[in-house]
Order: sequence, then C-alpha cells, then structure tokens
Amino acid sequence: MAIVFSDTISLSTKGLGDTADITAGVTRIAEAAGAKNGVVAVFAQGSTASVTTIEYEPGVVNDLKKTLEKIVPAGAPYEHDRAWGDGNGFSHVRAALMKPSLTVPLIDGKMALGTWQQIVFIDFDNRPRERNVIVQVVGVE
Amino acid sequence: MAIVFSDTISLSTKGLGDTADITAGVTRIAEAAGAKNGVVAVFAQGSTASVTTIEYEPGVVNDLKKTLEKIVPAGAPYEHDRAWGDGNGFSHVRAALMKPSLTVPLIDGKMALGTWQQIVFIDFDNRPRERNVIVQVVGVE
Amino acid sequence: MAIVFSDTISLSTKGLGDTADITAGVTRIAEAAGAKNGVVAVFAQGSTASVTTIEYEPGVVNDLKKTLEKIVPAGAPYEHDRAWGDGNGFSHVRAALMKPSLTVPLIDGKMALGTWQQIVFIDFDNRPRERNVIVQVVGVE
Repeated sequence: MAIVFSDTISLSTKGLGDTADITAGVTRIAEAAGAKNGVVAVFAQGSTASVTTIEYEPGVVNDLKKTLEKIVPAGAPYEHDRAWGDGNGFSHVRAALMKPSLTVPLIDGKMALGTWQQIVFIDFDNRPRERNVIVQVVGVE
Repeated sequence: MAIVFSDTISLSTKGLGDTADITAGVTRIAEAAGAKNGVVAVFAQGSTASVTTIEYEPGVVNDLKKTLEKIVPAGAPYEHDRAWGDGNGFSHVRAALMKPSLTVPLIDGKMALGTWQQIVFIDFDNRPRERNVIVQVVGVE
Repeated sequence: MAIVFSDTISLSTKGLGDTADITAGVTRIAEAAGAKNGVVAVFAQGSTASVTTIEYEPGVVNDLKKTLEKIVPAGAPYEHDRAWGDGNGFSHVRAALMKPSLTVPLIDGKMALGTWQQIVFIDFDNRPRERNVIVQVVGVE
C-alpha cells in the first residue's frame, strides 16, 4: 500500500549562511512514516534558503560559506536591493543557485546517505529567521 | 490508492537566461492529478535549461543572470564550441551547474512553496527555443 | 499498485572531476522496476560526488570541470584541510554546490530526458574511489 507522510522541521536560524544539520530530524520523520522503501523529499520553504548534503564539520561548512561569498558577494550591488531595499539580493541569488530541494532514497527503512554525508539546511538571508523545512516521504511498507 | 499523473508545460523562450515563472502551470497540473499528498517532480527537458525557485521579480531574475554570466562567461572559450561550433558551450555549463530537476512536496492539495517562492524555468541556450517542462505528480488521494 | 524498486550502480572512478555517463545503468534499473509511470530518484552516496545531466561529450565535460576549478580552486586554502589533512576540501565544496540528487520523471516506461541530455556521476574527490549511485523508482504499473 502506498504511504505518503509529511512533517515539518522548524528552525530558528541566524541567517548569513547559518548551516544546520537536519539529518536527525529528517531521519525521525522518515521513520515515523512507516515506509520501508521510497523517496524522502526535503524542501526549504522560502526563497532565501537551501538544502544540500555535506560532511557536517565546521571546516567544510565555512569553506562552502566562503565560496558562496566569493561567487555571490554580499557587498556587490544587486538590482533586487535597489527595488526593494531589504539588502538581501545576495541571499536570493545564493538560494536560487543552491536550490531548495533534495531527494534521498529510503531503502529498508534507512536513508541511503554515505557515512560522512549529512543533510543540511542553509539560511542565506541577511537576518535571523524562523524557518520550515518540509519533509515528505512517498513509499511502501 | 497511488496516483501518478504527468503533463507537459510548453514554452517559447528567448534563450540567454530567459526566465519564465511556471508556478501557475505546475499548480494546474498538480491540481489536475487529483492527489492530496505526494511529490511534484518538475523537470527541464534538454541539456541547456534548468528549473529552480526564486522570488520572481525582475531585479532578482537579473541578479541571477549576472551572477551566472560572471561564473560562466558567454565570451570565454569553451571546448564544446571548438568541437561543435554552435557557440553555446556556456549554456551547457550553466545548465549542468543549475541542474534540470526540482521536487516540491504536495500537502493537502497545495505545493509547499513559500509566499515569495516561485518555480522558474531558465533557458540558457544562445537562441530562442521551444521547450517542454515535464511535471510528474506521485501521491495519494 | 504502487511499485518501489531500487538498485545500485557501482563505479570505479579516478576522482578529480572524473565524469561517468550512467544513463544506460539508470535506464536498466528503471526498466527492471516494472513501473510505467513514476519518478526515478538518482542519488550519489558520499559527500564528495554529485549527479547532474549534461550533453555527454568530452568538450562540455571538460568545460564544466574548468568552471568548477575556477569557482572552487583545488589549490586554494580550505579549513577542512587544515583540520583533517586529507587535502580534499575543494572536493567537499564542489559536491555541496552540485548536490547529490536528481529526480527524473518516468513516462510510459521511458525517462523524460532530452535527446542530448545524459545523466552523469561526477567524482570530485582527490583520489580514485569505489562509488555507489543509488537509483530508486517510485511509480505504478
């Protein structure tokens, strides 16, 4: 029988690339779904945040932040800021590049992540935010 | 009962980063599927286009274009162009970076998008194109 | 009836951006699943590899490698390397940017890829690796 189950992970973030390891939260939802096999869709709600996987240790997390600062500098001029004045044009561009979705296979009740591969939520906004990450499991018993 | 439903959004684009808001089209297909909960897979068919989410206003759309022009300049030399002569090496690289797929959870009949988060199709090719975006809903009633 | 089917593609890679066309392997698994319609989730297991689509010809494959070398240079200093000493900080950042997942709609038994759009696995690590790509089909007959 098909199972579809979803839940939300709520986070308080600091913005500016704040990166949260949400692997445990996604795992809890995947287990609560009661599906043995299927897909786990992880989705960052909002246009200034993203999800990806990374080895969650402070070094790599900072390396990714610095790379995005180089590619999409916070201090550069953005048309979005001229029009809207909220100063987070760089946040929008970083999020559009990194994208909000990630899909992880669920096999025998476990997500198919590598040993050093964690699921992270990255908040690119320029201020602290309350965030929702939507986790949707589609599978079978 | 499991529902799988798919339809195609056809677009005429101008290429060169032309960005179309396809949220309404994807929403129509998601509603036509008759699923209450599930995932909505959005897929850009072709190797010179992508889908992502963004706050769809002209400022951010241009900011993303400029960032991609900086990262993957149209005027730089590309091996693809030396071999194939169609001059769209930069288009291929941009599309491979931005990727063709996006997966959005469907919850109680509504996609879990944020208020200012639109689904966009970006055509990176160097000429106008006729394009197909495939939308596939997998869920339950 | 809902069908969920998964299998693994095992690869020996050379690292350093080594790019393998896995379209035939993913197609075989999609066909073996026995689903007519659904989604095919392709997932790179590990934190230094990614999947995307590209026109698989040597020119574009090299162009993408060079772009990633420009954005995330192998020779730059990374905090990950100072802490862990394995010298693959650039590999982790490239993989986090490119992300490990891709979702392709399956329609009438065929993946909805464009004619020149191949699914590739890219190994960003700094040494040869044995890799697993997980392919999960969720669909209906």
